[in-house]
Amino acid sequence: MMIDRDALKRAAAARAIEEVEDGMILGLGTGSTAAFVVEGLAARVRAGLRITGIPSSERTAEQARRLGIPIATFAEYQQLDLTIDGADEVELGTLNLIKGLGGALLREKIVAAASRRLVIVVDQEKLVDRLGEHTPVPVEVTRFGWQRTAAALAALGCAPVRRYAGEEPFISDEGHFILDCQFGPIADPALLERRIADTVGTVESGLFIGRTSMVVAATTTGVEVLSPPPRTR
Amino acid sequence: MMIDRDALKRAAAARAIEEVEDGMILGLGTGSTAAFVVEGLAARVRAGLRITGIPSSERTAEQARRLGIPIATFAEYQQLDLTIDGADEVELGTLNLIKGLGGALLREKIVAAASRRLVIVVDQEKLVDRLGEHTPVPVEVTRFGWQRTAAALAALGCAPVRRYAGEEPFISDEGHFILDCQFGPIADPALLERRIADTVGTVESGLFIGRTSMVVAATTTGVEVLSPPPRTR
Repeated sequence: MMIDRDALKRAAAARAIEEVEDGMILGLGTGSTAAFVVEGLAARVRAGLRITGIPSSERTAEQARRLGIPIATFAEYQQLDLTIDGADEVELGTLNLIKGLGGALLREKIVAAASRRLVIVVDQEKLVDRLGEHTPVPVEVTRFGWQRTAAALAALGCAPVRRYAGEEPFISDEGHFILDCQFGPIADPALLERRIADTVGTVESGLFIGRTSMVVAATTTGVEVLSPPPRTR
Repeated sequence: MMIDRDALKRAAAARAIEEVEDGMILGLGTGSTAAFVVEGLAARVRAGLRITGIPSSERTAEQARRLGIPIATFAEYQQLDLTIDGADEVELGTLNLIKGLGGALLREKIVAAASRRLVIVVDQEKLVDRLGEHTPVPVEVTRFGWQRTAAALAALGCAPVRRYAGEEPFISDEGHFILDCQFGPIADPALLERRIADTVGTVESGLFIGRTSMVVAATTTGVEVLSPPPRTR
């Protein structure tokens, strides 16, 4: 049987949108899954739902505007009720994440940090036993001295690769480079996140630790909802 | 007696330059004191000293070029031998620093982090018993969501003020805003530095902890050289 992955993602997005309540200030994620969320939200807005979206990228802002979702910025709201976003890897159990392969990790992390709840929509393939199994950790770094920052990151146990967009180095919405850092399976992601944060020249990493409130996973047998462990910090 | 502060600074800069050896890759600081260092270095280069400078700002790069000091970037060198720079506050004893009131803290910190030794030149008034006594801690933050980042920094115990350049918000060389965070005397600067680094949306703070190799202070009675405590980390 042919699996329609888009239909699965759409179903998972619909489940996540059930978390949205009238009047909410809502963080809008970035990426192919998040685009389904914005699409689904737009349908509910047309049906009368009142929300205000804070987009995590120019791309998402453009989509929201086009579909008629009212958007605002952090100038108006510093506390969001809920953010719905995708992820590149979700660790089973902890629900810690790697995000940002789409290049919007910094804005996504700022939006997530400002939100009371973070709901993640993914398909089955993104679920892993250990973060880092399949994907590198993207690290946003300042352009000045990026070679030195790359050397400092390498000392943490990876071989950083500067991301390109065609012939040119990729530049994030905030004007930084992205170094993709393949660590392999990560034993202690919280420690790694802190070590990366302590490295001079880094702006933010794609590790999202202890931030997830709920994961909605699209599987071939249906939509599964995962909850994080009780908070220990 | 009238005190010629510039003469004092120049004398201190001259003492710091004694640390420079032929063939060194040298980080060049930013600010009025650092400008005296660049001036003094230029005189030694004209006398035959061979060095390569890595400037920490466009301003310093321009001065170095004009005075004939060969400069390079991190593309060529990721490990520097020595950086000479100024500071806004030096804590007596620890020699921990607050830097970046001049707006170049991020690049200055990247240059300092890449250097085997960091020599700081200041005049007497910059020496304090506790960091934060006189000056705010400048924190470089991304423009996106800066209001949210300011709220998160306020929760650490300060009232962040966005820096302006005339009528417009000040933009750093790397394209960020600066929030000046007045904490008052700081009991544990290392902890504060880490908390700021862990705050999503911050790029770097002006706290320089455990990085100073030597302080050259210009006092009214002469040039004083201070050494840091033995490293405990």
